[in-house]
Amino acid sequence: MTITEKQKKVTEELLNIVKSIYTQLDDGQIPHLELALRSKKNIKFDPQKNVWIYGDMTTSRSAKKIKGATLMLRTLYMVDFIRDMIENQHSSTLREMYYISEGWGNGKFHNQDESNLLAEDLEVITHCMREDFRLRPEEDGARVIGDLTLIETDRKGKRKTINCRDDVGDSGYNIPYNVEKDKVEIKSVGADFVIAIETGGMFDRLVENAFDEQSNALLVHLKGQPARSTRRFIKRLNEEAGLPVVVFTDGDPWSFRIFASVAYGAIKTAHISEYLATPAAEYVGITSSDILNYDLPSDKLTEKDVDALKSELKDPRFNDEFWRSEIEAMLEMGKKAEQQALAKYGLDFVTDTYLPEKLSQMGILL
Amino acid sequence: MTITEKQKKVTEELLNIVKSIYTQLDDGQIPHLELALRSKKNIKFDPQKNVWIYGDMTTSRSAKKIKGATLMLRTLYMVDFIRDMIENQHSSTLREMYYISEGWGNGKFHNQDESNLLAEDLEVITHCMREDFRLRPEEDGARVIGDLTLIETDRKGKRKTINCRDDVGDSGYNIPYNVEKDKVEIKSVGADFVIAIETGGMFDRLVENAFDEQSNALLVHLKGQPARSTRRFIKRLNEEAGLPVVVFTDGDPWSFRIFASVAYGAIKTAHISEYLATPAAEYVGITSSDILNYDLPSDKLTEKDVDALKSELKDPRFNDEFWRSEIEAMLEMGKKAEQQALAKYGLDFVTDTYLPEKLSQMGILL
Repeated sequence: MTITEKQKKVTEELLNIVKSIYTQLDDGQIPHLELALRSKKNIKFDPQKNVWIYGDMTTSRSAKKIKGATLMLRTLYMVDFIRDMIENQHSSTLREMYYISEGWGNGKFHNQDESNLLAEDLEVITHCMREDFRLRPEEDGARVIGDLTLIETDRKGKRKTINCRDDVGDSGYNIPYNVEKDKVEIKSVGADFVIAIETGGMFDRLVENAFDEQSNALLVHLKGQPARSTRRFIKRLNEEAGLPVVVFTDGDPWSFRIFASVAYGAIKTAHISEYLATPAAEYVGITSSDILNYDLPSDKLTEKDVDALKSELKDPRFNDEFWRSEIEAMLEMGKKAEQQALAKYGLDFVTDTYLPEKLSQMGILL
Repeated sequence: MTITEKQKKVTEELLNIVKSIYTQLDDGQIPHLELALRSKKNIKFDPQKNVWIYGDMTTSRSAKKIKGATLMLRTLYMVDFIRDMIENQHSSTLREMYYISEGWGNGKFHNQDESNLLAEDLEVITHCMREDFRLRPEEDGARVIGDLTLIETDRKGKRKTINCRDDVGDSGYNIPYNVEKDKVEIKSVGADFVIAIETGGMFDRLVENAFDEQSNALLVHLKGQPARSTRRFIKRLNEEAGLPVVVFTDGDPWSFRIFASVAYGAIKTAHISEYLATPAAEYVGITSSDILNYDLPSDKLTEKDVDALKSELKDPRFNDEFWRSEIEAMLEMGKKAEQQALAKYGLDFVTDTYLPEKLSQMGILL
């Protein structure tokens, strides 16, 4: 495989960091790097892109103190390592990245949080994505089943055409860690909409009940808090293929956050919300009202749950009427429920009754 | 799909439980069920099958007390539910099974441990497998990459031929929860041996470095403590396809247990060791001596680690020279290491140096 234009661009962005440090040193200054502050108080809604992004607050990384100088040393080592991976068409897990630093003398990371954070800093500075740096997380991609035909360019540069219903087993197609166009191309879509599902148990339920065919849906497994590649993949299905996206999770504060990360972007990665977030995504459930209307088996909210719900009331991403009322209703009844609790009414209830009812209310199914 | 002979046999075995309860009641006795005691003190080595199985100690489940009577009621409900699933070609997660009991009145389970345990009891009594009962865990199957051609019969009874290198993306083929012959057929194998890998990061490393082609290996991701389907799949590759199996994990007490469950069977499931265990499997590392010989980045053993190692010294499955010396060596140096720690020497070290060295010592690579 040859180095693409995009990869050249990424290398260039990275080398600009090195240049700026060099110039500052050359001018006899103590080098520093400016980057956006990554915290809840610095995220704001971008009406153009329709997602939550970082505001104007910045933070400065100076080499004045030893800690800062060490960080800058690491930055240079990491830039060098990434450039090397791009040249050799290599990639590495964030864990390997951490171990690689064993050879960096004083630049060695003390724990993986340090190396992960620096990788994110580089994203913020260069406006590139970790995937462009060929760094990937451990978690393996989620699964997809439905009438979607992809062309994946494999590790040897071979282009493989894969239909996510006809060419895969019942476990579906695995979303790779890199789903950019140069790796995964959307060739054609037969499905009418995407339903992103939190748990593997419910994903398999919809597969077994052939919900993908019954409702012409594309089933995507979120696997709890979805990996970046899963969120990016969903966004591409929504924007490139024009598919509506609905999210089906448990009914608890943590699942609300899963929806938020799909629809609005995560606070930790607001600098790339425009790549990862799908603002058009809608929440199908489990809602607080579902717990009442369908009389679902439920559990008491724990203290942690209550605190999470309260902090969500302060989270700008949840600051709309739907979510305020959902969160307040849940706090009021003090109960949460899992999506698999629908099995109380039998294994077909979710596909024969619950989803058809909810999705037609939402105008997704007619 | 029509009901297979095997499924008829399973239903029959289950109905025998009902018959025995009925007969006991009919004779005016308080009904009870006998089953093997499932604990460390009741597992013994079976020289024929070459795996660890349960001994002769049994436990009796009587309906004398309310608790026992409730358990028997649940047993009958579950038998009925399973028979129903077999007739309707349905399956369910263990979680759904738990929720299904919401409709059983006094038979309702109080938590999922109860329902999981009962499912295992039914296995012990009927000598069938949970998969025969069409009950499956949440965890999704691990991934496979290499020259192996399978025929998977999908949910609609369609037979799909899939080569795990040419017909899948870089994320590989997903092992479904049921890998029995009627679901997954091994058509042909080009690989020379199986390497089962604990972490996703290392699996992806071997994929990216094309270790499957370089050494003509079949790469199987264990995903931590492997699911039953993964262990069953590995056993079939070993016995049906005649492939040697090596296991590549982190170097710590928990990873030793992962190897043990692949090679000797798990204590919790010793009643089906002969289906799941691969006695011929060998441990490639990370070993205590690797930590020294390759000077790997390591962490101090925690108290929990030390206790785990000590209890492994008492575990009959580890009662051979190799494991005694490995465990004692680890206790002595007080250190553990992850397989990804090999990245200290660069991303190719594991495939260019470590595995070739270790595998040729083991006579797997020549």
